[in-house]
Amino acid sequence: MAIILYDLCGRNRELRFSPYCWRAKMALAHMGLAYETVATPYTGISGIGDGVAKTVPIIEDEGRRVQDSFEIAVYLEAAYPDRPALFGSESMVAAARFMEGWTFLALHPLILRMVLKDIHDALGDSDQIYFRQSRELRFGRKLEEIHAGVPSSTASFQRALDPVRRTLTMHEWLGGPSPRFCDYVLFGSLMWLRTIHGSLPLVQADGVHGWFERCLDLFDGLARNAPTAAPPEDVMPATAARGVLADR
Amino acid sequence: MAIILYDLCGRNRELRFSPYCWRAKMALAHMGLAYETVATPYTGISGIGDGVAKTVPIIEDEGRRVQDSFEIAVYLEAAYPDRPALFGSESMVAAARFMEGWTFLALHPLILRMVLKDIHDALGDSDQIYFRQSRELRFGRKLEEIHAGVPSSTASFQRALDPVRRTLTMHEWLGGPSPRFCDYVLFGSLMWLRTIHGSLPLVQADGVHGWFERCLDLFDGLARNAPTAAPPEDVMPATAARGVLADR
Repeated sequence: MAIILYDLCGRNRELRFSPYCWRAKMALAHMGLAYETVATPYTGISGIGDGVAKTVPIIEDEGRRVQDSFEIAVYLEAAYPDRPALFGSESMVAAARFMEGWTFLALHPLILRMVLKDIHDALGDSDQIYFRQSRELRFGRKLEEIHAGVPSSTASFQRALDPVRRTLTMHEWLGGPSPRFCDYVLFGSLMWLRTIHGSLPLVQADGVHGWFERCLDLFDGLARNAPTAAPPEDVMPATAARGVLADR
Repeated sequence: MAIILYDLCGRNRELRFSPYCWRAKMALAHMGLAYETVATPYTGISGIGDGVAKTVPIIEDEGRRVQDSFEIAVYLEAAYPDRPALFGSESMVAAARFMEGWTFLALHPLILRMVLKDIHDALGDSDQIYFRQSRELRFGRKLEEIHAGVPSSTASFQRALDPVRRTLTMHEWLGGPSPRFCDYVLFGSLMWLRTIHGSLPLVQADGVHGWFERCLDLFDGLARNAPTAAPPEDVMPATAARGVLADR
């Protein structure tokens, strides 16, 4: 029986933007495990299982329920030791934890400011009410005020990726010769931005851009083919699209 | 024949403060390799070998010369495969590179501001002239002006260690169940501060403090027993020592 993954969704139930759910999806795909996602709005999380969970991803695997993307990766590696390894050693578990901590502290505050208002706009009605209340309480500001800081966050976001950039001048993946869970940790965070904005604010020549493109290609384009809230810029720039409408 | 390590030194030739040399020393000790250090002032680096090297550490191992702490670690692991592994996998080489990049970008600018003037004061006469000229050119400010920012750097330094702190709530070492080169990368950077200031500005309850103490204990206290420019605070606080003298 396929593994079930509860996956955060927008008003368009095919819009899957959660960085943590992307980490879990890439982990499942890396191990070649069959899984089915259950589109889950924020206000649907309390309906999973016994109702105590406050966050997704959650997987169900033959009666076992595992919550939290990192716990899911550790669980999968232990449960399916014959599959391609996400870590390969306890050392790499610790290294992925460092990547998780760095990503959370150095990148997430910047990405949050860039996407928070747009995530809100992409949610269903009940989720919008929950999201605005909980986030405005957490940040002490209106979503619209947080959104005003996007341009400066973009420059900071690019600079914040410098340690990754340095590593990728010497290695194809953050996991070395092949992708490991540490790659998916960062990739999940960047998919948050891509699914909401349609693309990343990185130039083609940037090594991080090249690595991100390689990640998008993994597993038959699993992430590349995922719907976004905005169309990718190389298909139809958002501003140009608006321009066309204004001209009519 | 023992490996030779050219190791940066102060006016007191037993004062060895270079973060990169500490990384190399810990790597040699980790692998249980016999080595001898050659005390090398800044102005003595051009006298090593063919004279093209601008930085230490440099090791000489049976006619082979290897420069750069990371290159030394990679060399040692390849040359002595039967010894305890510094990486253990190519994945861990990439993970240590990320740690190196993060340390360089997130920590070194803060530590530099804290120690630059004090390093200068601990150098021999010729080194002081070289150090002041090269550093004031690089930073565009007098050493004394850079030093004035120490208190604010201390708070930033403590905050900057947050990703390490998170990792160490779950793992004893950054390398997981045992120390790896990624531990020595960060440890070397912190030894820079300890050898110059005598201690780190971290509270006892801090997980980073506990990890640093474990590192100091490794290899029969190799790093703990290293001379410092200032006495450790738990032996004789600098201010108290001055107070005693003033009372006499």
